[in-house]
Amino acid sequence: MPDLRLHGVVPPLVTPLDESGEVDRASLERLIAFLLDAGVDGLFLGGSSGEVALLDTAQRRAITEIAVGAAAGAVPVLVGAVDTGTRRVIEHARQAAELGADAVVVTAPFYVQPHPDEVVAHFRAVHAAVDVPVVAYDIPSAVGTRLTPEVVTGLAAERVAVALKDSSGDLASFREIRRRVPADFPLLTGSELLADTAMQLGASGIVPGLGNVDPHGYVRLYRAAVAGDDAAAAGEQDRLARLFTIVSVADPGRIGFTAGALGAFKAAMALRGIIANPATNPPLLPLDDTETKAIAAILEEAGLGEISR
Amino acid sequence: MPDLRLHGVVPPLVTPLDESGEVDRASLERLIAFLLDAGVDGLFLGGSSGEVALLDTAQRRAITEIAVGAAAGAVPVLVGAVDTGTRRVIEHARQAAELGADAVVVTAPFYVQPHPDEVVAHFRAVHAAVDVPVVAYDIPSAVGTRLTPEVVTGLAAERVAVALKDSSGDLASFREIRRRVPADFPLLTGSELLADTAMQLGASGIVPGLGNVDPHGYVRLYRAAVAGDDAAAAGEQDRLARLFTIVSVADPGRIGFTAGALGAFKAAMALRGIIANPATNPPLLPLDDTETKAIAAILEEAGLGEISR
Amino acid sequence: MPDLRLHGVVPPLVTPLDESGEVDRASLERLIAFLLDAGVDGLFLGGSSGEVALLDTAQRRAITEIAVGAAAGAVPVLVGAVDTGTRRVIEHARQAAELGADAVVVTAPFYVQPHPDEVVAHFRAVHAAVDVPVVAYDIPSAVGTRLTPEVVTGLAAERVAVALKDSSGDLASFREIRRRVPADFPLLTGSELLADTAMQLGASGIVPGLGNVDPHGYVRLYRAAVAGDDAAAAGEQDRLARLFTIVSVADPGRIGFTAGALGAFKAAMALRGIIANPATNPPLLPLDDTETKAIAAILEEAGLGEISR
Amino acid sequence: MPDLRLHGVVPPLVTPLDESGEVDRASLERLIAFLLDAGVDGLFLGGSSGEVALLDTAQRRAITEIAVGAAAGAVPVLVGAVDTGTRRVIEHARQAAELGADAVVVTAPFYVQPHPDEVVAHFRAVHAAVDVPVVAYDIPSAVGTRLTPEVVTGLAAERVAVALKDSSGDLASFREIRRRVPADFPLLTGSELLADTAMQLGASGIVPGLGNVDPHGYVRLYRAAVAGDDAAAAGEQDRLARLFTIVSVADPGRIGFTAGALGAFKAAMALRGIIANPATNPPLLPLDDTETKAIAAILEEAGLGEISR
Repeated sequence: MPDLRLHGVVPPLVTPLDESGEVDRASLERLIAFLLDAGVDGLFLGGSSGEVALLDTAQRRAITEIAVGAAAGAVPVLVGAVDTGTRRVIEHARQAAELGADAVVVTAPFYVQPHPDEVVAHFRAVHAAVDVPVVAYDIPSAVGTRLTPEVVTGLAAERVAVALKDSSGDLASFREIRRRVPADFPLLTGSELLADTAMQLGASGIVPGLGNVDPHGYVRLYRAAVAGDDAAAAGEQDRLARLFTIVSVADPGRIGFTAGALGAFKAAMALRGIIANPATNPPLLPLDDTETKAIAAILEEAGLGEISR
Repeated sequence: MPDLRLHGVVPPLVTPLDESGEVDRASLERLIAFLLDAGVDGLFLGGSSGEVALLDTAQRRAITEIAVGAAAGAVPVLVGAVDTGTRRVIEHARQAAELGADAVVVTAPFYVQPHPDEVVAHFRAVHAAVDVPVVAYDIPSAVGTRLTPEVVTGLAAERVAVALKDSSGDLASFREIRRRVPADFPLLTGSELLADTAMQLGASGIVPGLGNVDPHGYVRLYRAAVAGDDAAAAGEQDRLARLFTIVSVADPGRIGFTAGALGAFKAAMALRGIIANPATNPPLLPLDDTETKAIAAILEEAGLGEISR
Repeated sequence: MPDLRLHGVVPPLVTPLDESGEVDRASLERLIAFLLDAGVDGLFLGGSSGEVALLDTAQRRAITEIAVGAAAGAVPVLVGAVDTGTRRVIEHARQAAELGADAVVVTAPFYVQPHPDEVVAHFRAVHAAVDVPVVAYDIPSAVGTRLTPEVVTGLAAERVAVALKDSSGDLASFREIRRRVPADFPLLTGSELLADTAMQLGASGIVPGLGNVDPHGYVRLYRAAVAGDDAAAAGEQDRLARLFTIVSVADPGRIGFTAGALGAFKAAMALRGIIANPATNPPLLPLDDTETKAIAAILEEAGLGEISR
Repeated sequence: MPDLRLHGVVPPLVTPLDESGEVDRASLERLIAFLLDAGVDGLFLGGSSGEVALLDTAQRRAITEIAVGAAAGAVPVLVGAVDTGTRRVIEHARQAAELGADAVVVTAPFYVQPHPDEVVAHFRAVHAAVDVPVVAYDIPSAVGTRLTPEVVTGLAAERVAVALKDSSGDLASFREIRRRVPADFPLLTGSELLADTAMQLGASGIVPGLGNVDPHGYVRLYRAAVAGDDAAAAGEQDRLARLFTIVSVADPGRIGFTAGALGAFKAAMALRGIIANPATNPPLLPLDDTETKAIAAILEEAGLGEISR
């Protein structure tokens, strides 16, 4: 079993699709090879960037199988078990565990409006039901609920969760959690834009959607941060922040925020030759040619060309 | 095939659970018999009151099978195909259709942040993929997105949706939709508290969670409204509004809103002998004894005792 | 003192401005004459439609003086005392009372985040400090806080408030309040689109911003409702709903919602010759020519031409 | 005129009140002396911590006069001109300027729902109307609107605003603004909990409400940050974060968030002898004895006793 002291760069992989809309095995394997070659420390399949909310049963199974196979134990494979209720999450988590995932990543329940004690009950029940470690995932923009410092601290103390992925954007609570959980409880930041800051504040790793496009940048940032070279980390962060503007090129009057952001990641990856096809699952609408050209220009400015194969 | 000009009282059935947490077939069959005996015009399984977000695959299958069997064609059986993304909704809808559901009930996508055009694309794709009519379900409190009058009008014009269930609480937009869709496009209100008003404004039916507890009240209300006896409908509505206070007895400092409301329905139903057990799916926490006694007192005041079997 | 059993149509008057941005006395007097001639039952100055949040001290004073003079006791003059905190509201309320207002209209505190008990304390303190009746004003879209049925019921029982203006859009709570307050406690609806429905549910009056443009329509609606002619009231409501589409012609990518709605009222009034100038206070941006033409077309369709003077 | 390259610790002073509810001159002068003695670099009167939304005209005048007099030119005196609309803000700003304020601090308009271009128009109009520099104040929790990086960058480029006070809690946008505005455009953070982080990210100063209670702590933090001693700054930040827990002792079931936070600052200050009376303006409810004792315990743990006079 790989080291689950989660750390380093753990990109939340996009789910490459072929022209029929099914998982594109070749592209996903190429992506994984590209990420491992860049030096990432883990792979997270079926996160928000992986369109977890849009994947059907076969797609979820496919990405897990492919990733476990392609990672071949080199780094941990995390799989999202993201769903509205406890029993549904347990179904996903068990499937992921059976397919060889090293950990599952679980949000608060949603659609329902839970009390914090029900959020805790959710994590306890999932933990009790599955044979694979649970990473708690705080993403209020998607689920409408926070994992408060009290909730996270409790989950850490009980060892119900083995780590936190924080996509809340709230560094004050991140810091409060860091003060209150044991030093060896990994906190992973989901922020593309404050990765170096989160490292300074005690993050052990980074889970950046943009890491699909430029894993080398985040690996350099992470290594600079670990080495204590804050200026180098900040410089890399600034460069990545400019690259991150790809998520804003889509016209919000035409397509939704999620379609614009995930579409931009995939468009950039297709432009670089990392995946074959920028398509996203329905009902997300595609970027148009103008938007894709804008992304190409940003890539060029960032010095990101086609990858060699 | 039953008449799908949806109308009348179509309760969103709770999902009765036994002590092991599985679907309690006997209770569900008793509930359906009780509702049919009260004169309801349809059954809606796997709605928000049916804990759709908390049901696993086996539970979803069980409630559909039991309901289709118990209804035996007497009234239409609607089944929720409520999920975050298009492909997932199609999976649910196909299963429901295979098991004999007469229609599926579909919300806007959630977790993702869709553009209205993506909401329309979602409904179109579901409609194209399944052999069963689609009822559009507007429930912004759960999904965070409105089905705007533009979206609904478009779905009606294309016959992508055959009806709307409106749980938005916004009668101004309800009325705008009523003005804009064909007269034979059924609008069903999800409001327990404004059912008579919605009827006056052109609703063809009512989908009240509280109808699990007191279907006779909503049937009386509906029939009075259809007969043009607004005063009788309003009187019944006032009585039901007092009964609806059961959803507020739970302590919001202890359990969440959903747990308090669904728990109250089930507690009242167990007190009346309609179902055997008030349990809800995890992670919802149960009502306590004080809360259950408060519900018993409200039932007594409403003149609702044990049902005869 | 005019009858303060508030009832009937009480338009929230716009604040006409001249080209220098000061209150346009002639236009305001013409507006008041127009409204009285149409048969309104009260005048509400300095409401949300009156740009209360954008008026400076001199403008507030001017509209109150002009209205008290022009109304000449024929109908009650209500004046908004809308501000963030208790002492500020008391300052406004005292000035309004000194200038002859018959009642002041007060919202929950805002900018601060109050507890419901602090909202009650706010109304109690204002009531104790001024010699003029207080009308409670529920407008969560502007202040971010609801006046809950509990709060309103308490204010009514203590006679701290003499009436409620409900701009919440929530007819379920409106109805709960109606059930719980004394029958002679006036509830005024701020809804342009559900005025007839609110009347059926026990409203004693209507405070429609659109009543600046078409007071005759709302007077007809009100009188039909009082006479029990629900069909005539509904027909008028449908007509007014089409007219209300003027608030949506502005491009939300260019100017804000408030500017679009208030600008539409004033543009329509200027087109009808009720006021001289459609200008709004800074920082609201003006409608453009295309938008104004769209409003003219809607007016024409509604059969609303220039008023005779 | 003092140096308006705003920098350093600029506490947003509470407004001390006497038993009659008026401004307590002696306490305010003592507070100012205490802060200056601690080494602060500016004074901000009439901010959110100064109960700006709850002050009447006389109170606003009093705090400005007292502060300008007590500061005596030693440090800049900033005064909040916080209100819903442009003309009202101009009234406040002119009064502040006449009384000797060195700058005014202005938020986005609120109550109304402005477009970003209207926010810009607001700042331009205030800037054009007053003879005192304008500091832009981003506080979405109070006003419901963000000052986006685009808005701030534009205000900086036009010199309409001379600085930004950022109370958004969003360090990603803080950082984007830092990248886009000139290096000499001061960014002040309103965060009590991320002050050291904001300094590392390019803040030139800190505006901490908690600085009323422990200005020495923030001065030490600031000086450590400027000296590049990040560890010392972080250690001080951790100490202050523990002290900041005073804002959470109040029971949210009894009093509002604002009352709890501002009441805690004032209770701590009264316990330390900095001000005579912990009272807040109506309608905020006071802390109770248990809550005040909890604050005393936290002060003791932080080593903060009575100040010498």
